[in-house]
Amino acid sequence: MRQYKLAIIKGDGIGPEIIDEAIKVLDAVSSHENFELSYSDFLMGGAAIDVFGEPLPEETVQGCLKADAILFGAIGGEKWDTLPREKRPETGLLNLRKALGVFANLRPVSVYDELVNASTLKPEVLKGVDMMVVRELTGGIYFGQPRAKEAERAYNTMVYTKEEIVRIAKVAFESAMKRRKQVCSVDKANVLEVSQLWRETVEEVAKEYPEVSLSHMYVDNAAMQMIRNPKQFDVVLTGNIFGDILSDEASMISGSIGLLPSASVGGQVGLFEPIHGSAPDITGQGIANPIATILSAAMMLRFALGEESAASRIEKAVQQVLKEGYRTKDLSAYEAKEVCSTSEIGSIIASYV
Amino acid sequence: MRQYKLAIIKGDGIGPEIIDEAIKVLDAVSSHENFELSYSDFLMGGAAIDVFGEPLPEETVQGCLKADAILFGAIGGEKWDTLPREKRPETGLLNLRKALGVFANLRPVSVYDELVNASTLKPEVLKGVDMMVVRELTGGIYFGQPRAKEAERAYNTMVYTKEEIVRIAKVAFESAMKRRKQVCSVDKANVLEVSQLWRETVEEVAKEYPEVSLSHMYVDNAAMQMIRNPKQFDVVLTGNIFGDILSDEASMISGSIGLLPSASVGGQVGLFEPIHGSAPDITGQGIANPIATILSAAMMLRFALGEESAASRIEKAVQQVLKEGYRTKDLSAYEAKEVCSTSEIGSIIASYV
Ligand SMILES: CC(C)[C@H](C(=O)O)[C@@H](O)C(=O)O
Ligand SMILES: CC(C)[C@H](C(=O)O)[C@@H](O)C(=O)O
Repeated sequence: MRQYKLAIIKGDGIGPEIIDEAIKVLDAVSSHENFELSYSDFLMGGAAIDVFGEPLPEETVQGCLKADAILFGAIGGEKWDTLPREKRPETGLLNLRKALGVFANLRPVSVYDELVNASTLKPEVLKGVDMMVVRELTGGIYFGQPRAKEAERAYNTMVYTKEEIVRIAKVAFESAMKRRKQVCSVDKANVLEVSQLWRETVEEVAKEYPEVSLSHMYVDNAAMQMIRNPKQFDVVLTGNIFGDILSDEASMISGSIGLLPSASVGGQVGLFEPIHGSAPDITGQGIANPIATILSAAMMLRFALGEESAASRIEKAVQQVLKEGYRTKDLSAYEAKEVCSTSEIGSIIASYV
Repeated sequence: MRQYKLAIIKGDGIGPEIIDEAIKVLDAVSSHENFELSYSDFLMGGAAIDVFGEPLPEETVQGCLKADAILFGAIGGEKWDTLPREKRPETGLLNLRKALGVFANLRPVSVYDELVNASTLKPEVLKGVDMMVVRELTGGIYFGQPRAKEAERAYNTMVYTKEEIVRIAKVAFESAMKRRKQVCSVDKANVLEVSQLWRETVEEVAKEYPEVSLSHMYVDNAAMQMIRNPKQFDVVLTGNIFGDILSDEASMISGSIGLLPSASVGGQVGLFEPIHGSAPDITGQGIANPIATILSAAMMLRFALGEESAASRIEKAVQQVLKEGYRTKDLSAYEAKEVCSTSEIGSIIASYV
């Protein structure tokens, strides 16, 4: 029997609630698909600060590096917001991404027919949207040196090396080859040197993929086009901060940020997490939507463990559950037949896999 | 009779077409309001590169500095896209903003009832939206040093001084005092030092405006909230690049980027321009929408020349023309009674002021 060791980071806020449901679903699918999963819990973010005084204990890094894949919930909360940057929950996540070397963040965005009314965008704009945001995750202004906050000024550096651009571009083109063979690279090359290198380098990589059509878009225009006509996008390739902004924006296409998973890959071990945050405002109420995390677990099965059939079982179960009208509170106004708690919808999905 | 000297920069692409209509409207309103306008043309962007080999000739800077206000169309085009950054059309605009010292870019976003269906967002999300994006315009990553493109790496610096943040924050709070008294400051303080200084400094400035309520939002969340519920925003205060992205995104709220004006103020002479670009794809066809430029001329009358009554005459004329169903091609599908060319709609607006 195939055996996989998973590192689990529940994190803060709704993190523990949504991770519990993903594990429920993983247990169900593994029993059907004949593999075994073992879970080890690690602390990161606020939860780690409270225990160890730091957001990413060495023990967590080591545990993650030994795992076959990492499933992560969410971190952060007001309690830790006034700490200096190096001590904040978010810094734990950034340092984990860096330690793992997961430079490629894949954020698929699509629309469920049943939820087409949940978006603030008109249904005709949404039908058929199917894009993959490929965001560079371990470079750019998130990590660039020098960086400092002095008394009278503060600065960060947006930097990319050619090598960093080449490897993320390859991920985007490879992804496009399995999709509609279009890459739209987003930058601000009319203003930034770092974007000019980005654009030139992406052009070079494109030569290795003659079947893929490449276009470029300035980030301001992309933020507009994402709403004007999201169907035009297949693979969107972009840097760390532009990807952060555009993928959150794109989440509105699917109607709820509670639906969107992500995979961070390309390093030693893959990290899988919903794109939403820790939602302190709804923590502990049993109303969080666990679907983004459950779908992140499916991406984990596919990309980290090669369990394609298990991954698509989960995705189909989610589709079925939504089709039948089961909804968490965030989506209760849209073709709901039954409004479920976090744990109820997790159990239903688990029973459908 | 009051006399004002205007510097006119038509620029590239549709720039000349839309500026001509704004001048038509300005001439009409000045005859009613008893002031006199004189116009001097200056070159910038691609048009200047073609003549002088550089995007911002000294003569243009000097002419602008001597004017009472500057009305600008748009710049850029494929022809100049391969030039090195310092020689590009966009660099001309950036350098002009810097030379004038116009650190505050005001971008109002609202919705015309008649055009509520023109947006890809649902009407119920749009009704009543009325926000002002206050974007810092002469600092941040657009101008930060060091910056370079080397063979194997490239970088830019996102930098703000406390002084720069204080002065733009004041503009936002002053603007809020005349509006609904809410400022939402957008940053990425969970990751960037420059945003932490931004946030702290905005907090300090807020103390001088006890009537204004201040909130903070991360830029990724703001990009999402802008579509989820744009009504929540009154004044949005942000830095140069985040403002660039968010204001283009917000333009989709009003249904067409061809409707939105902007004012760049706070320096020696104010610069007024539509937020859209030079639209090479529709240049010379007589179908460009001149309304954003005409409304920029109205902002110029209000903010630079103190001609409030003339400004609101123009705004009312635009409203009336839209209400009566006159539309340029971009908006021809939305309650249009008559589809007009660029010059026709300009003439109609001029006749209504
Ligand atoms: C929590 C934060 C540091 C993080 C980021 O900006 O990368 C989050 O917004 C994300 O997109 O995963
Ligand atoms: C043309 C470009 C340099 C400019 C900018 O990024 O500021 C434009 O997008 C704008 O928003 O005015």
